[in-house]
Amino acid sequence: MNTTNLIGYFSAFLTTLAFVPQALHSWKTRDLSGVSLPMYSIFSLGVMGWIVYGVMIVSWPIILANIVTFVLACAVLCLKLKHR
Amino acid sequence: MNTTNLIGYFSAFLTTLAFVPQALHSWKTRDLSGVSLPMYSIFSLGVMGWIVYGVMIVSWPIILANIVTFVLACAVLCLKLKHR
Repeated sequence: MNTTNLIGYFSAFLTTLAFVPQALHSWKTRDLSGVSLPMYSIFSLGVMGWIVYGVMIVSWPIILANIVTFVLACAVLCLKLKHR
Repeated sequence: MNTTNLIGYFSAFLTTLAFVPQALHSWKTRDLSGVSLPMYSIFSLGVMGWIVYGVMIVSWPIILANIVTFVLACAVLCLKLKHR
């Protein structure tokens, strides 16, 4: 794998991984007051779009990374809808 | 522009746009308790990686979308560091 692809995969890994501590924090504290509902609504929709895009260009890294992000973002969105 | 690219650009637009309401919400309320510091630290680093990747493959949509996302995510990160 060349340096460029390595940076791309590492960036995808980080921007996906980032939602793990947020989902855990929201789950544990149930403190969702500072979390924006429009953000997670728009973001989840956008990530769903990325999954469709990944399927259309048959890119497994895009599909898999965005499925994980989608699950995590939806978890935060559901907690926000429940505890707002 | 074909349908595939249109979906890609629209998804990029949404996942960037999503951080606008979060940054505004954090700025207005200064309520950052529910926002995860590790999330915004890891996410900002990942977005920085995407900018580098965009520069390396010379993709202006990736560069521009991620510069906007970086500014917004860093704003939330700075507010979190100030009001935690």
